[in-house]
Amino acid sequence: MVLLRRGFATMASVKKASKVVCIGRNYADHVAELNNVRPKQPFFFLKPTSSILLPGEGPVIQPRGVDLHYEVELALILGKQVKNLEASDEQGALDAIESYALSIDMTARNIQNEAKKKGLPWDIAKGFDTFLPISKVISKSAIPDPHNIELYLTVNNEVRQNDSTELMLFRIPRLLSDISKVMTLNAGDIVITGTPKGVGPVVPGDVMRAGIKINGKELEDAKIEVG
Amino acid sequence: MVLLRRGFATMASVKKASKVVCIGRNYADHVAELNNVRPKQPFFFLKPTSSILLPGEGPVIQPRGVDLHYEVELALILGKQVKNLEASDEQGALDAIESYALSIDMTARNIQNEAKKKGLPWDIAKGFDTFLPISKVISKSAIPDPHNIELYLTVNNEVRQNDSTELMLFRIPRLLSDISKVMTLNAGDIVITGTPKGVGPVVPGDVMRAGIKINGKELEDAKIEVG
Ligand SMILES: [Mg+2]
Ligand SMILES: [Mg+2]
Ligand SMILES: [Mg+2]
Repeated sequence: MVLLRRGFATMASVKKASKVVCIGRNYADHVAELNNVRPKQPFFFLKPTSSILLPGEGPVIQPRGVDLHYEVELALILGKQVKNLEASDEQGALDAIESYALSIDMTARNIQNEAKKKGLPWDIAKGFDTFLPISKVISKSAIPDPHNIELYLTVNNEVRQNDSTELMLFRIPRLLSDISKVMTLNAGDIVITGTPKGVGPVVPGDVMRAGIKINGKELEDAKIEVG
Repeated sequence: MVLLRRGFATMASVKKASKVVCIGRNYADHVAELNNVRPKQPFFFLKPTSSILLPGEGPVIQPRGVDLHYEVELALILGKQVKNLEASDEQGALDAIESYALSIDMTARNIQNEAKKKGLPWDIAKGFDTFLPISKVISKSAIPDPHNIELYLTVNNEVRQNDSTELMLFRIPRLLSDISKVMTLNAGDIVITGTPKGVGPVVPGDVMRAGIKINGKELEDAKIEVG
């Protein structure tokens, strides 16, 4: 008899997340490359689940007039409700993670820059359909330490991003704590944890490949290949 | 025999919306009262569904250090998927609406002002738990013309907001068109359409009452009473 664990994340369930919470400016070198101010505390925004692009669902669509940028990020998929988690509760944070995925936080950079200048929300710049390519679900056991893996992204086989998650300014317990003190996180919710340096533009025809290496070894389920 | 229409919105289904999209600055006098710039086109942001507060679920929780403001708004509940709707397609827009609700877009005004100044996202300021009190579902037939109803909000029985939706800068077909050209709207999704003038602070112990009047007559299902 096969026992299916209740609530186990599948590709079908990913799009049914009640929300996707995205951390901004969580790697120092990325903050510097966009001439941004290093945050004193984590900040975050939402992407709509309608922006999720599953493996095999086709290319990222570039909206007319948009400067399209990639941002490779580790995604956490939660397995239980999290509310008012204490930042010191590292075990509680790790226990709340059910599985992982790799994701690309596609961004309409010119729209975002305009929004930042005018003090307007980021949600349009971040929320177009297809703006969140995501890998297969990665089992929790495949990533023994989420703060010690290598994220990479190539465009047309040229390496553009390649850094370890050990460079995160705020680590996962602090991220889940800060988010959950604002908004309750539910089982199935997705948190993307910020991007390392190397973000840049893509145009139609470019091929993005992204993945995770652990001790130099490629994680098969983490691979993304998207036009 | 009672036939239940498939997909009919219920209070239970409201929290399962795949997203809540919120229009900013859609009433001229409200734009002026916050010293904002009148937008050349609609803009919008997201609230997480975790912020929804159904009738009877208790009070709005004021986070520590937060200046809490109310914004009464007409909510649309969609009955079908909307993607790339043309602004001229008024019938398509109205057909996409399955029902209505009244809502209060609670806002952490000091956090929002800080975010605007720093060019940061609005999602924290808008997204705390309990920040979206909502009425019962209002049947579509109860609102023959969504551009000709009166929204009101009182605090401790003093009228603070009271204006007609005919004052919207951008009307519903334009709103649904602009949103759906960025992000696909799904059946069950909620769109809140902006607030008229009169926004202001509340503190714990204050009682907000809000409602809709049509030709001077109160709509029972639209009533909100929340601490
Ligand atoms: Mg990002
Ligand atoms: Mg949902
Ligand atoms: Mg509002």
